[in-house]
Amino acid sequence: MATIEAGAPVFTLINTFTVEPDRQDDVVASLRDITERVMRGMPGFVSACVHKSLDRKHVANYVQWRSVADFQAMFVDPRAKAHMEEVRAMALEVMPIVYEVAYVGELE
Amino acid sequence: MATIEAGAPVFTLINTFTVEPDRQDDVVASLRDITERVMRGMPGFVSACVHKSLDRKHVANYVQWRSVADFQAMFVDPRAKAHMEEVRAMALEVMPIVYEVAYVGELE
Repeated sequence: MATIEAGAPVFTLINTFTVEPDRQDDVVASLRDITERVMRGMPGFVSACVHKSLDRKHVANYVQWRSVADFQAMFVDPRAKAHMEEVRAMALEVMPIVYEVAYVGELE
Repeated sequence: MATIEAGAPVFTLINTFTVEPDRQDDVVASLRDITERVMRGMPGFVSACVHKSLDRKHVANYVQWRSVADFQAMFVDPRAKAHMEEVRAMALEVMPIVYEVAYVGELE
């Protein structure tokens, strides 16, 4: 389980992949695999939540890191780089955006 | 606090707004306002987490609903519709995508 809180000491990467519908499952499997094999052992990793769209045209990876520096270190790790090239090759488009949480509203 | 779990009975809307950097705070404020005033009282609403990008060019609203039907009912509610028109007018582009959670990986 991952948690989202305003003011928590995390930065959030939301990486949105546009995919051919018949590649959606492959992209999900690839993101799951790299999380299990590589990301979970990296400094500053908090969580990765892979989402598949109901229209099968998108995959979103909601990833939390302790700091922007940890996140940037991941981007130059050779294993992570090889993975990113692999998953990018499966997708039509990739849109990575780094956020901080501004507000959380829950059920009354 | 919101939680993300594979297999939880929720559907997730990730609504990504592309904005002029000087409108980012306005979009965040508008999403917060409508969540407090309208969404939190609607059937099937679970949580809304508003994120602002570090580059100030995006806002992402990560919203959980109990069912797709609840989510669709929100889209025809007059108060929600008026809000969506307001926030759309502040943004350059809006990309709403509905997902289910496929996988959650956490720190070892």
